[in-house]
Amino acid sequence: MKNKNYYAILMAGGVGSRFWPVSTAEFPKQFHDMLGTGDTLIQKTFNRLAHLIPKENIFILTNERYNDLVFEQLPEVTKRQVVLEPAMRNTAPCILYASLKIQKENPDAVMIVAPSDHWIEDEKAFSKNVQQAFDFCAKNNALMTLGITPTFPNTGYGYIEYNLEPEALEDVYIKSVNQFREKPDYETAKTFIEQGNFLWNAGIFMWSVKSVVASFKNNQPTLYALFKNGIGAYNTDFEDDFIRDNYAKAENISVDYAIMEKSKNVFVIAAEFDWNDLGTWGSLYDKLDKDSSGNAVVNSRILTEDASGNMIRTKNDKVVVVDGLQDYIIVDKDEVLLIYPKAKEQDIKKVLQKVKTTYGDHLG
Amino acid sequence: MKNKNYYAILMAGGVGSRFWPVSTAEFPKQFHDMLGTGDTLIQKTFNRLAHLIPKENIFILTNERYNDLVFEQLPEVTKRQVVLEPAMRNTAPCILYASLKIQKENPDAVMIVAPSDHWIEDEKAFSKNVQQAFDFCAKNNALMTLGITPTFPNTGYGYIEYNLEPEALEDVYIKSVNQFREKPDYETAKTFIEQGNFLWNAGIFMWSVKSVVASFKNNQPTLYALFKNGIGAYNTDFEDDFIRDNYAKAENISVDYAIMEKSKNVFVIAAEFDWNDLGTWGSLYDKLDKDSSGNAVVNSRILTEDASGNMIRTKNDKVVVVDGLQDYIIVDKDEVLLIYPKAKEQDIKKVLQKVKTTYGDHLG
Repeated sequence: MKNKNYYAILMAGGVGSRFWPVSTAEFPKQFHDMLGTGDTLIQKTFNRLAHLIPKENIFILTNERYNDLVFEQLPEVTKRQVVLEPAMRNTAPCILYASLKIQKENPDAVMIVAPSDHWIEDEKAFSKNVQQAFDFCAKNNALMTLGITPTFPNTGYGYIEYNLEPEALEDVYIKSVNQFREKPDYETAKTFIEQGNFLWNAGIFMWSVKSVVASFKNNQPTLYALFKNGIGAYNTDFEDDFIRDNYAKAENISVDYAIMEKSKNVFVIAAEFDWNDLGTWGSLYDKLDKDSSGNAVVNSRILTEDASGNMIRTKNDKVVVVDGLQDYIIVDKDEVLLIYPKAKEQDIKKVLQKVKTTYGDHLG
Repeated sequence: MKNKNYYAILMAGGVGSRFWPVSTAEFPKQFHDMLGTGDTLIQKTFNRLAHLIPKENIFILTNERYNDLVFEQLPEVTKRQVVLEPAMRNTAPCILYASLKIQKENPDAVMIVAPSDHWIEDEKAFSKNVQQAFDFCAKNNALMTLGITPTFPNTGYGYIEYNLEPEALEDVYIKSVNQFREKPDYETAKTFIEQGNFLWNAGIFMWSVKSVVASFKNNQPTLYALFKNGIGAYNTDFEDDFIRDNYAKAENISVDYAIMEKSKNVFVIAAEFDWNDLGTWGSLYDKLDKDSSGNAVVNSRILTEDASGNMIRTKNDKVVVVDGLQDYIIVDKDEVLLIYPKAKEQDIKKVLQKVKTTYGDHLG
């Protein structure tokens, strides 16, 4: 039997525009089978969490427009579990709102907040680390994260610096956090790696509802007051009205900035699993199996000559003939074909903007 | 009123495999709108001939499997006008067969045999040259061709050498032919151009039915006997049976080899119109308008950076983003995407064979 106090919030409101043209505002990346495994990213994430957490305690935090996609892809999920943001806000407001709902339902809840669109292969190691964090959070007033041991000085992630001098922690794998560091420049990232006590911030948080609500109350009194006000309405027929009237008043602020960077009771576990945020076509390429020429292929059937290092994706079984291309992203969708150098993958957002301006918003 | 003695045979049985993946055995190039003008190549050819020739006298020579495509694309054409080859043979058997049918219907017929998949822009000049040839053929026992003035030593075409010493011809633009020359190597082609009395063989022939039937009788007595045998059946309910039983017995031989190269009464007019055989993606590229970077685009909406000299074709309005490609063929179809250097366009036939072997004949 899974612990009835265990809860999860799956963050599923993002757009993933660097994965255009597959990921679009209408149909973002978490709802796609990006890896060609047969499951969409949100399905994989849901199933991974369900090893430890009762399915009915996994909440999906998303946007109104993705409501149908959620029910389609996660048929076991009920309306109660889908928390809709009526306005686009950063992570703090929706996490506070969902935490208060869960606290009202179960004041003893311990929960994980996790992105719905990351890649984690080793589900056993993931469950083990989450269990360790849950055990710690159930006994301590703690805000916890899972940090990723860096493999190179990546400038695209935030970093978590933990204290090398261990505090008197019972469990040696739990480190107290000294500070969060924003995405660094390359030189700074190199010193982080050299120091050895830095981890990548993967956006995975664990805490008891009691601890997270207390932290919001202390660090974000205005935001807290706004959502505390609706406590009578949450999990009732009056909730929708309250949220519609109040959500847009919330400050546009991330959970990192709102509470994590301001709190003293922050802890981290260095994850024992491989992790990839699948942020770009290149990071997807890194995770996929390659053919003998180093081409990564999702769905397509390819015939290549002098073509290597390419990331190729089409609809199922489409035949792609490529001659003479190195390190390209070749992505074909019904309405869009992208042939773009992997080295410029960060510019795909700009390309998308240009395409929308030139040919219409429906293409993005 | 158009002359009731004027007839045409449109050759529409080819496959055009260097235009793969657009052109396939199921749906060959002549039935596609290769130029993006709104008309397919066979529609353009039919309409061009219809300026001079009564529509009901334009016959379509094609393969059983393209019967439906013909009626779909040329709704004015009746069953009588569609001549089906029950077996794949070179051009001589079907031209003789169709000529005998036409002769039975109208012994005074003068006819043109023309490919259905070539590009000719100046329809007035075309009509003028055909009219000149028809006038000559009506009065003389002549086998005529339209030759194209060569612009460079192309090794992909056959050449027609005409006599510089004019015979006593009434019309100075009509030259008597000395000999046909097969596709030459580059050095030979250069000497052809230097000599000045060589034209490209465009596969366009004009003659009276009387002259062409006589030439077959003289030069190909076996073939002539085979088809002469069916004369009672042609244009009657017995025709299908006769052709089904006899067509496959015909020698697999081209009209050039069967009669043109063997006859003394061959004449040529140097065409006054621009012509392109649309044999490859590159020749199509040459004919199309280009954007400011020299990209030729059919149907697509493009967004390019550092991309020039490319031939891009997709279904209508598909957005194609290309960064960093020069002189490529980028052709997208529902089931196939081809990204291939223009310089290697002659290899597309081989690629097609490989694709069919690897992934199935239905793709070609």
